[in-house]
Amino acid sequence: MSEIRKVCVVVASRANYARIKYFMKAVRVHPRLQLQIIAGASALLYKFGMVTNIMEADGFEPDWRIHYLIEGENLTTQAKSTGMGIIELSTAFQELKPDVVVTVADRYETMATAVAASYMNIPVAHVQGGEISGNIDDSVRHAVTKLSHLHYPSTRRSAERIIQMGEEDWRVHFTGCPSIDILIHSDLTPPDADYFKDRGTGIPFDPAQPYVMIVQHPVTTSFGRGAEQITETLLSMMDLPMTKVVLWPNADAGSDDVAKAIRAFQFEHRNANYTYHINFTPEIYASLLAHARCLIGNSSSFIREGAFLGTPAVIVGDRQQGREHGVNVRFCGYNRYEILSKVRWQIAHGPYPSETIFGTGNAGEQIAAHLAIAQLDIRKRLILKEPMQAPIELAEQQV
Amino acid sequence: MSEIRKVCVVVASRANYARIKYFMKAVRVHPRLQLQIIAGASALLYKFGMVTNIMEADGFEPDWRIHYLIEGENLTTQAKSTGMGIIELSTAFQELKPDVVVTVADRYETMATAVAASYMNIPVAHVQGGEISGNIDDSVRHAVTKLSHLHYPSTRRSAERIIQMGEEDWRVHFTGCPSIDILIHSDLTPPDADYFKDRGTGIPFDPAQPYVMIVQHPVTTSFGRGAEQITETLLSMMDLPMTKVVLWPNADAGSDDVAKAIRAFQFEHRNANYTYHINFTPEIYASLLAHARCLIGNSSSFIREGAFLGTPAVIVGDRQQGREHGVNVRFCGYNRYEILSKVRWQIAHGPYPSETIFGTGNAGEQIAAHLAIAQLDIRKRLILKEPMQAPIELAEQQV
Amino acid sequence: MSEIRKVCVVVASRANYARIKYFMKAVRVHPRLQLQIIAGASALLYKFGMVTNIMEADGFEPDWRIHYLIEGENLTTQAKSTGMGIIELSTAFQELKPDVVVTVADRYETMATAVAASYMNIPVAHVQGGEISGNIDDSVRHAVTKLSHLHYPSTRRSAERIIQMGEEDWRVHFTGCPSIDILIHSDLTPPDADYFKDRGTGIPFDPAQPYVMIVQHPVTTSFGRGAEQITETLLSMMDLPMTKVVLWPNADAGSDDVAKAIRAFQFEHRNANYTYHINFTPEIYASLLAHARCLIGNSSSFIREGAFLGTPAVIVGDRQQGREHGVNVRFCGYNRYEILSKVRWQIAHGPYPSETIFGTGNAGEQIAAHLAIAQLDIRKRLILKEPMQAPIELAEQQV
Amino acid sequence: MSEIRKVCVVVASRANYARIKYFMKAVRVHPRLQLQIIAGASALLYKFGMVTNIMEADGFEPDWRIHYLIEGENLTTQAKSTGMGIIELSTAFQELKPDVVVTVADRYETMATAVAASYMNIPVAHVQGGEISGNIDDSVRHAVTKLSHLHYPSTRRSAERIIQMGEEDWRVHFTGCPSIDILIHSDLTPPDADYFKDRGTGIPFDPAQPYVMIVQHPVTTSFGRGAEQITETLLSMMDLPMTKVVLWPNADAGSDDVAKAIRAFQFEHRNANYTYHINFTPEIYASLLAHARCLIGNSSSFIREGAFLGTPAVIVGDRQQGREHGVNVRFCGYNRYEILSKVRWQIAHGPYPSETIFGTGNAGEQIAAHLAIAQLDIRKRLILKEPMQAPIELAEQQV
Repeated sequence: MSEIRKVCVVVASRANYARIKYFMKAVRVHPRLQLQIIAGASALLYKFGMVTNIMEADGFEPDWRIHYLIEGENLTTQAKSTGMGIIELSTAFQELKPDVVVTVADRYETMATAVAASYMNIPVAHVQGGEISGNIDDSVRHAVTKLSHLHYPSTRRSAERIIQMGEEDWRVHFTGCPSIDILIHSDLTPPDADYFKDRGTGIPFDPAQPYVMIVQHPVTTSFGRGAEQITETLLSMMDLPMTKVVLWPNADAGSDDVAKAIRAFQFEHRNANYTYHINFTPEIYASLLAHARCLIGNSSSFIREGAFLGTPAVIVGDRQQGREHGVNVRFCGYNRYEILSKVRWQIAHGPYPSETIFGTGNAGEQIAAHLAIAQLDIRKRLILKEPMQAPIELAEQQV
Repeated sequence: MSEIRKVCVVVASRANYARIKYFMKAVRVHPRLQLQIIAGASALLYKFGMVTNIMEADGFEPDWRIHYLIEGENLTTQAKSTGMGIIELSTAFQELKPDVVVTVADRYETMATAVAASYMNIPVAHVQGGEISGNIDDSVRHAVTKLSHLHYPSTRRSAERIIQMGEEDWRVHFTGCPSIDILIHSDLTPPDADYFKDRGTGIPFDPAQPYVMIVQHPVTTSFGRGAEQITETLLSMMDLPMTKVVLWPNADAGSDDVAKAIRAFQFEHRNANYTYHINFTPEIYASLLAHARCLIGNSSSFIREGAFLGTPAVIVGDRQQGREHGVNVRFCGYNRYEILSKVRWQIAHGPYPSETIFGTGNAGEQIAAHLAIAQLDIRKRLILKEPMQAPIELAEQQV
Repeated sequence: MSEIRKVCVVVASRANYARIKYFMKAVRVHPRLQLQIIAGASALLYKFGMVTNIMEADGFEPDWRIHYLIEGENLTTQAKSTGMGIIELSTAFQELKPDVVVTVADRYETMATAVAASYMNIPVAHVQGGEISGNIDDSVRHAVTKLSHLHYPSTRRSAERIIQMGEEDWRVHFTGCPSIDILIHSDLTPPDADYFKDRGTGIPFDPAQPYVMIVQHPVTTSFGRGAEQITETLLSMMDLPMTKVVLWPNADAGSDDVAKAIRAFQFEHRNANYTYHINFTPEIYASLLAHARCLIGNSSSFIREGAFLGTPAVIVGDRQQGREHGVNVRFCGYNRYEILSKVRWQIAHGPYPSETIFGTGNAGEQIAAHLAIAQLDIRKRLILKEPMQAPIELAEQQV
Repeated sequence: MSEIRKVCVVVASRANYARIKYFMKAVRVHPRLQLQIIAGASALLYKFGMVTNIMEADGFEPDWRIHYLIEGENLTTQAKSTGMGIIELSTAFQELKPDVVVTVADRYETMATAVAASYMNIPVAHVQGGEISGNIDDSVRHAVTKLSHLHYPSTRRSAERIIQMGEEDWRVHFTGCPSIDILIHSDLTPPDADYFKDRGTGIPFDPAQPYVMIVQHPVTTSFGRGAEQITETLLSMMDLPMTKVVLWPNADAGSDDVAKAIRAFQFEHRNANYTYHINFTPEIYASLLAHARCLIGNSSSFIREGAFLGTPAVIVGDRQQGREHGVNVRFCGYNRYEILSKVRWQIAHGPYPSETIFGTGNAGEQIAAHLAIAQLDIRKRLILKEPMQAPIELAEQQV
């Protein structure tokens, strides 16, 4: 084992980077850790905001760049992209020879990373495991947990779940979510209107004026209905007398449909009070979350950062249903009248008190500190502590 | 939902087919099920016995054939093969449009199948989940459990584990292992010496004479030591005055090394009492298991079929360590003297009473019957029944 | 050999279909041919106009759909997409078992098709071989010629070139270009303004008013400069008092850049007299070519269909430089003043007489008729007729 | 352009290395060149002799290792391996950023290299282009010529052909074949019997005794008949009272069949006078070629090195039919009696005078010297010097 541990972070999307940036900073300054960065998939694409440009501006030069998204953004290409990801990442791991690979959350890049590394006997550290959202991402997230060797969950309850699923105690460390770190380390003042002058499309954006934010991704288990769902949300806000800041969706199956629906809406209502953006730096995104009158859609940032910031949020549909959340959140169906009504209620309510269910903002440092000393052992044991009370007679009875 | 359910079975190796054959038979005759067969990976290769020839002789014509093994059989190619498997299987699933996909056990083909199907919103039924062997396959097996929607474990204890890991009760059905079915449906009389005249290499094989069987696969977590390990086992048997029936290893990382070591041994001791075989039909393999004086190595068949047949077995190394097993099994290190001593002890002991921990031989029928009526719901919930007694303060204390 | 020959056409982009549609029609009605259609790559993508929808409206239901474009549209992903195309097409060929595969032109889909088929011993028929454009596509086109077994070039000179490159005479048949067929079979009347009401973006398009067309693809050998080049062309037309009809670029390396530049131009000049379209049916595209006052950019349709229709064209840059063309064409550098000046000259000139260098409009029928009787022989001979006059002493002298 | 040119050599098989070794040596010592080595495909596999071990012993440490052979060795997997090769090589080229890529001969690795590099705008130098063998490899070789920017053919006639196919004169340099270089630089004394004691299988090999060499690869255009063909050759030599040195075949489609047939022969005739080898170092292989009484099979080394060494050769079947060759060669059908009779004739004849049609043994140095100064221009022009005498009226007449 080398004295200095090589910690390889796979950044594969806009969201990935925001969540992991402060962890990467902590690794970079740690005397016993060496940072390796693989940038892949939508993190390299213009249409998802070319995250690598932002990373480089922050001083994070990727050691490796891989394209592995198969165009199409339907269910088949999502599977194929995972396959390509494994093929390409295994080459990268072979060349970079990391001591441990860090992967975040629950998307297909996460799965590709976990599969490639675990087949190559490289320990996997998983951030944001153990969460429940109620949709298909859960299966992937829990499968990644089963392939991972160290777990850094974002909430206490998630840590408990990981252990209940049979992971050994010593592999699980509640650190809070590194996406909170950014809220502590930046001053959360949005840029002024000038900054946005040449950025985005639609009306010019002035954060000094009241605004709400709309971020709504396609939901893979209801593939094919994303266009209709986002359109309902966009229409719901037509009469709200505030700026609507809309973010383009990320690279999930169905995101082409959603993007197309937004584009159609944009042209049909080209003078309406909406401004459209591909990407923000993590700091600017955080500042916009902090000062929005309401957050609308299904981004998990509304729940994580939202809880800490106390920004009122209306979560549309079932993508986050079942997820642990703070008091700032209200859930809502895909119905324009219901959405508008709940958004008005939330705006009227105003900011909520800050909560720390997703940590206190030092997750990145904690994870780095632990990775420097953790036992990197790929032989896992399944520890199921509680004996079952009742024997299982199910199969006999039923079949 | 179609009236007739299309059940797609992915057969990707010699072992796969033996385990799943009686389930395939049950699907084929079920009035509400239609069988789809995908043959892939080592099931299509001569050097692993061209399992498709045996399948076709049994009347199972594959609907789809895919090659996706990247040559090299090291850790990197194992990861890449998984990636290629996902890419190719997703094409097959797209064309065959199955209602449910059935996958077996814990190898990388199993992982590729589960990832491809679950990303395409196709329900996955997993056979042999919930088991513990103590090696890296466990991680893959439990990850596949997390990606699967119906579970048909082979033992009661495995069923319990799957539920403890958070799967919903109604998705889990203890059916026993379909590899036992074959023991019930065939007469277990080995072919006579004539049958083997033109088969295999080494000395001619006559099952009427006393023999032991050696099946020892490489262990991926100790990649690079497979050659030495198999050589120790082969040498241990030099002085045993019986025929040694040796099977070539399957397509894991490291199998090239093991095959090379066997070949070297074969040439160095070309007149010794060993006979070498690539493959048997499932029925002949079962009959040979039934009449062997002892089974030596790390094949899981020694544990599953072995328990039911009561054939004495010496399990070498840690590939199966921790696996549930019957009284027929003794464990042993990679040491030729220890192996020989334990094999002699087992031969002296002779057959053990039959045990049914892996079922009573009707698993295939039970699984088929259940698949015809099961709810095919891809939205899973994580059910962790037992609240944790102690809160987790780990991270705070340690880091 | 089957009585009925299975002719497999790979349609992989918007341009592919327009070029090959009348050939596909001829195959469909031929008594000794059976049509197999593989739709792949950008033909399946919304952002390139979802050509499969148009094909299905024409009664061409694909037998196979494959996604194999790796997102990124740079030089690396172009290579990787070719690789994925080979992997996916070989599966399709294995299942469809065509007697002959037909591929068109010179893009990476063409290369992938030719490589996959020729390695699988399937005869390849190549349409539009032997042409010279002066850019990197030439290398690919000539390499495809070397992998093909039957050649259906679009011009007499191309046929000569193919033979001079060493192909056997009997494999080469000058048929003209099937993209001309469409001009003969449709009435070339553009739809009225109503048809375009909900189509495209920018100002509403009324073909009854004078208009010019702009189609400018990125040039792979000057990768990275596509944005600047298209911007120059778009700006050049600002003062032209006509509608400018702009098509989004196809899926080459660099097309993301070009699309981004068009989008930027569109927003900066949102009230300017430009209308932007992703795709037209082949018939509508032909009618628009026929009635445009001038064609501006680097689409090869300006040269092929343009020669037959006599529509004035200004070819910008070097993508088509060196290509055989009619009198309707003037070449031009990437300079806005030069472009504008030459476009004005061409508009003032008005329509040119029709030329038949690209055939008389029955290429599809000719190719189909020939494929029904052609010898399908994969063993090629290299026939270089002219002995060289001077011996080659180059290497000795120079090195 | 960097001062020092980075020359990237892709070594993908046992034969590749022998052919290119002295070129690599010349690059390594050239003050203006930097050598980059990619080792891939069968060069990394034990069953093809693990060429990388030999390379490392010669001081050539690969900069990159890639596995991309899909197991199966049939026509479909050959196509898929090419696809995977392109995907993996494009990653390597992206990281290594070579100024020029060197590829040899005509196999699918060569095609993958040429496609990947040319799509990435990296100049390709092709060694051994322009040759004619009369089988399907010709198509690939000529297609690679069309994708290449510098040509280093092995014979004058090949150089002429490349120019006749339309390549610009200045891109073509007759250098002779680098496989001849090794014959000049080594002393061609075979090792003694001791060296072979633990090498190979079959009877012990003593090069001091008279021997013939058998190297016969599968022929892809007659896929499926390789086993029968090699068996005929092996049987033909049964009565020849000399040692028969047999090499296992390389990784073409069909090589599994051939290897299986050799293995079957080996076991059936285990006491016959045959010795079987996976690989030799290039020097030892050259020395064995030099001292064999006759060379039997279809290896191109029998023609290249054979011509220079004057070793009598009997070329079986059509794999090399049509290839330029010296007086040392006699051709022969797949018939054991014909083979034996011609081999006896050749042995009786004894050594032929040395010929230099494949060069005088300084090809590697010449190529390196030229690469250091050559213009690296990716924009090719097609130069077809001789106008055709007769116009082409083919299509009109026939269809």
